[in-house]
Amino acid sequence: MASPVDFWFDFASTYSYLSASRIDAEAAARGVVVRWRPFLLGPIFAAQGWTDSPFNLQPVKGRYMWRDMTRRAERFGVPFRAPEDASAFPRRSLLAARVALAVRDEPWGVAFCRQVFAAEFVEWRDIADPAVIDACLEQARGSADGFSAADIGDAQKTALRASGEEAVARGLFGAPSFVVGDEIFWGDDRLEDALDWAAKD
Amino acid sequence: MASPVDFWFDFASTYSYLSASRIDAEAAARGVVVRWRPFLLGPIFAAQGWTDSPFNLQPVKGRYMWRDMTRRAERFGVPFRAPEDASAFPRRSLLAARVALAVRDEPWGVAFCRQVFAAEFVEWRDIADPAVIDACLEQARGSADGFSAADIGDAQKTALRASGEEAVARGLFGAPSFVVGDEIFWGDDRLEDALDWAAKD
Repeated sequence: MASPVDFWFDFASTYSYLSASRIDAEAAARGVVVRWRPFLLGPIFAAQGWTDSPFNLQPVKGRYMWRDMTRRAERFGVPFRAPEDASAFPRRSLLAARVALAVRDEPWGVAFCRQVFAAEFVEWRDIADPAVIDACLEQARGSADGFSAADIGDAQKTALRASGEEAVARGLFGAPSFVVGDEIFWGDDRLEDALDWAAKD
Repeated sequence: MASPVDFWFDFASTYSYLSASRIDAEAAARGVVVRWRPFLLGPIFAAQGWTDSPFNLQPVKGRYMWRDMTRRAERFGVPFRAPEDASAFPRRSLLAARVALAVRDEPWGVAFCRQVFAAEFVEWRDIADPAVIDACLEQARGSADGFSAADIGDAQKTALRASGEEAVARGLFGAPSFVVGDEIFWGDDRLEDALDWAAKD
């Protein structure tokens, strides 16, 4: 009996997008159940004194990341392009994360997350824009009716804060992270390790 | 015709040890030639204002690294244990790197590097100690006679400085790094990607 895997991701994170694109097929192949857990890296980075993505704070590492992402996406057949405008990264992922938590129990909750990632890392639309989020909701749900970005209230704000506190309590420091019981696996390059661990657990 | 791969490593780096243990078999399987390139991360980190390993500067990430190393080493069948005394990491790798450059053209030059890594990450001996380095030389060479740690002079100091300057010029920022032409692959988890790239180049 395989253990479930908690897939912790930030919509602003490039490598989270790669994992979001890969995890379903890899998990299905191993009979592993995945729980999608949106959270924000910003407060975790801020606690270390970082005011921006480490890929912007360290330009040499940032240049490498875009090249690495492009190569890895090609290797895995995942649509992706680096931004033409460097200021487009990272996007503010607060709204997307709150909405993802609001709709997480819908049968199309994961489809919404995929729409957000594609809008961001393929089309480079601004996922902080409520109109972009509403378009993602509509595509995932197949209808314009229902929850919209304008419906965010205290419940979703509290839920996202609680997610962030749980992430810190579990010892997470980056995204994507995969949690199986007490075991943490960090980075898209640990996706297979995490799922293998869950499958044998 | 496969391209050669430059394997840039720091003897103080845990993930460099993992790659050093894996690279020969993986390269041979693809018909790829590997050139071992010792360098020091210290000056590169210092240029970013880091005065210690990032795994010590960020304890949450450090705890993760030891667990991840232990799991990955087990997965790959590489002997490894985390240090009992946290102050044993990172070791000062200056002497080992200079000696590695001094003996790089010997048929046992790579064997010396392996001895150093094993002394460090399996036995936790201090590779900054000339007696430890001389023992590694003797084991790699099969004889006590020949170059010793005490023979380090200006030539080796200059060679290591030049390596560091080349690493910066190539855009390296961490170890291990694998360079194929102008392509950089960073981290033990990119070892296979780098070798695949070289094999098809």
